[in-house]
Amino acid sequence: MTKKARPPIDGNRRKILAGSLALGTVGITGGNVFGQVNPENLPPNVPEWTSYLGDGVDVTPYGLPSEFEENVIRRNVEWLTATTESSVNFTPIQDLEGFVTPNGLCFERHHGGVAIINPNDYRLMINGLVDREMIFTLNDIKRFPQTNKFYFLECAANGGMEWRGAQLNGCQFTFGMIHNVQYTGVKISDLIKETGLKSKAKWMLAEGSDSAGLTRSIPIEKALEDCMIVWAMNGEAIRPEQGYPARLVVPGWEGNMWIKWIRRIEFGDKPYMTREETSKYTDLLRDGKARMFTWVMEAKSVITNPSPEKPLFDHGLHQLRGLAWSGRGRINRVDVSFDGGKNWRTAQMHGPVLKKCLTRFSIPFEWHGEEILIQSRAIDETGYVQPTVKELQDIRGVNSIYHNNSIATWLINNNGTVDNVRLG
Amino acid sequence: MTKKARPPIDGNRRKILAGSLALGTVGITGGNVFGQVNPENLPPNVPEWTSYLGDGVDVTPYGLPSEFEENVIRRNVEWLTATTESSVNFTPIQDLEGFVTPNGLCFERHHGGVAIINPNDYRLMINGLVDREMIFTLNDIKRFPQTNKFYFLECAANGGMEWRGAQLNGCQFTFGMIHNVQYTGVKISDLIKETGLKSKAKWMLAEGSDSAGLTRSIPIEKALEDCMIVWAMNGEAIRPEQGYPARLVVPGWEGNMWIKWIRRIEFGDKPYMTREETSKYTDLLRDGKARMFTWVMEAKSVITNPSPEKPLFDHGLHQLRGLAWSGRGRINRVDVSFDGGKNWRTAQMHGPVLKKCLTRFSIPFEWHGEEILIQSRAIDETGYVQPTVKELQDIRGVNSIYHNNSIATWLINNNGTVDNVRLG
Repeated sequence: MTKKARPPIDGNRRKILAGSLALGTVGITGGNVFGQVNPENLPPNVPEWTSYLGDGVDVTPYGLPSEFEENVIRRNVEWLTATTESSVNFTPIQDLEGFVTPNGLCFERHHGGVAIINPNDYRLMINGLVDREMIFTLNDIKRFPQTNKFYFLECAANGGMEWRGAQLNGCQFTFGMIHNVQYTGVKISDLIKETGLKSKAKWMLAEGSDSAGLTRSIPIEKALEDCMIVWAMNGEAIRPEQGYPARLVVPGWEGNMWIKWIRRIEFGDKPYMTREETSKYTDLLRDGKARMFTWVMEAKSVITNPSPEKPLFDHGLHQLRGLAWSGRGRINRVDVSFDGGKNWRTAQMHGPVLKKCLTRFSIPFEWHGEEILIQSRAIDETGYVQPTVKELQDIRGVNSIYHNNSIATWLINNNGTVDNVRLG
Repeated sequence: MTKKARPPIDGNRRKILAGSLALGTVGITGGNVFGQVNPENLPPNVPEWTSYLGDGVDVTPYGLPSEFEENVIRRNVEWLTATTESSVNFTPIQDLEGFVTPNGLCFERHHGGVAIINPNDYRLMINGLVDREMIFTLNDIKRFPQTNKFYFLECAANGGMEWRGAQLNGCQFTFGMIHNVQYTGVKISDLIKETGLKSKAKWMLAEGSDSAGLTRSIPIEKALEDCMIVWAMNGEAIRPEQGYPARLVVPGWEGNMWIKWIRRIEFGDKPYMTREETSKYTDLLRDGKARMFTWVMEAKSVITNPSPEKPLFDHGLHQLRGLAWSGRGRINRVDVSFDGGKNWRTAQMHGPVLKKCLTRFSIPFEWHGEEILIQSRAIDETGYVQPTVKELQDIRGVNSIYHNNSIATWLINNNGTVDNVRLG
């Protein structure tokens, strides 16, 4: 078991702890009870500002988080890439609840920075093995039948730094290349009703209009099954860093294929073998060969709380919570271990449980200062069980960067701090 | 039929129209087809910025909408209230898709402005007819079992200005006192496992810590059925204007009861008859008597597109879309009329269809420049059918402000502009 350096603990949480202890701790499992109210002190804790008017509705036409939440932000790792234009901002999943990721906190990964596109100038071209090569405006696209779906988007490299030994002691940097929003858009299968599609068409090329011109090949079966061109996320226009005004959605498959600022779709009879599916986004195996076209994001899960950024401050009852997902469909079950994988308990899943969408799970547990190793494992509707590190490495070796969906382990120390550790 | 003054039309949309017409119009129902691509012009429309790197990931730790979406904001009506601290900011529902309302666009209504509360100072007191009067910190509350649920929140006065003749020609001001997010919190029924509850307790008082000290009574059956104290909306901490760090959620019931910045819950044996349930939030009937305790928001719907702010620019195929909801449970069906209520077609509902949650619906239609009257009506799982204006007024008269859930009518004019009109 290898420990990593512990990150600083949020000062605010320390203060909350102090307040909590002063009043006693939760006793709903029969432990200590909260302090009862002394009638002489009623009403308790009335702050001075209760006497004053707050801001009116003219102050925030577009609302923002509380000033006390300034620590809940996307973060990047300076040494990870040569420039910030080709880097990644990780979602602070340790701070989130439910399964919706707020748009402002959705992780972003660019190959040439954020393209800024005036929607009036936006065009989508469809060419290649179609009956009619066509160009659509954004307004045109919105006149097609519409689909609304929640989907997770995970970068193929999420957790990639863990392959050869854990390097970052945080939930955000180890699992934060994922987000989950409700998309609104048009299916590729509806768009091609307008262009026609020749029977020889077996592959779809998607091309972005960012300066990297990011381009990927997608087999026609997937393109017609559930891929979409979307213009909205969580109800509003898709954000600039997510491809405004339109991106491709490839449900359950690696994020790199979800072409942002999409400008062109071409249909062909073979894969296009672009840079991003040959020199990158392949998995190097033990024998030096590379797996190519490893699109699906297999079942995976993470415990978001407790986690390295979310230590335990009190003995007694806690609600362990986390997220599970599978690129193959619904999550059927999530198990949690409190002893490093020897015994497993089934967690509660919070509905709706949707296909290729994050599922929130939780399970209560008591902690009284002992060292424990906590793990979660996801089982999806195909019966696939999230593998251990050893099971994955036995098959894939240790050269990979992408598609690490192995079970992670957090160590809860005696003092309540939490470390990202590695078993076996 | 009474017409109202038409609002200005968004300049951007006019420009999109021009672009679209230049290329031809959508033909997926057999009308005109888009212009086919001239190979000499390929690749089309490559903007200059494609050659340049965009912003890197260090620029927006908390992301914001595109600069081109600056028109998609909450708006207030200056003459509606004496001050902006006691006013309302309406959700721009005409600009939204799906059923999630982004946190920054959720309507807000205050009685004393936005209270700013340091979460370290936050306390929730539970007193009255309980076995143990107790005070909880925010951290304490998070140690209870957690619930994640999507719910709509609608102000009782949504559409209230329409009772005595329509006055505002916009979807935002007529229907925008509603939002729909995923909440995370603890059920009241779980909290009282800790405090105990005496058998005489029949009502729950909820008290806010804003300068208005907003206070409402809730019958015990409802409090224990599905009411929650929540600290997160759409995954992140609840926003200041929605009650940061914690608010009450009263699913399906009028928004005024969803006490923000909640500081105290008291259990008693009768309603507390506060200002906000006696002099306000009652419905004045024809005979001068007032209906009191009219909590449930009955089934209702709105066509968001087309609407006064979303005119039609092209002849041919369009996707009519809208939202339906019911405080009594799921929406079973949504009907749309294109002839002022004579004939009805069943719209498609976009899942998941959840209890007391907005449901997105859509239906395709063709428009070729004729004047048409469009309406939608919601039917919920109890069989209740959203009433016409006449049906509602026959029962309730015209003195009410609150609980107007009657069917609305938009008139599409020959030139594609849309007006809020009143039939009969």
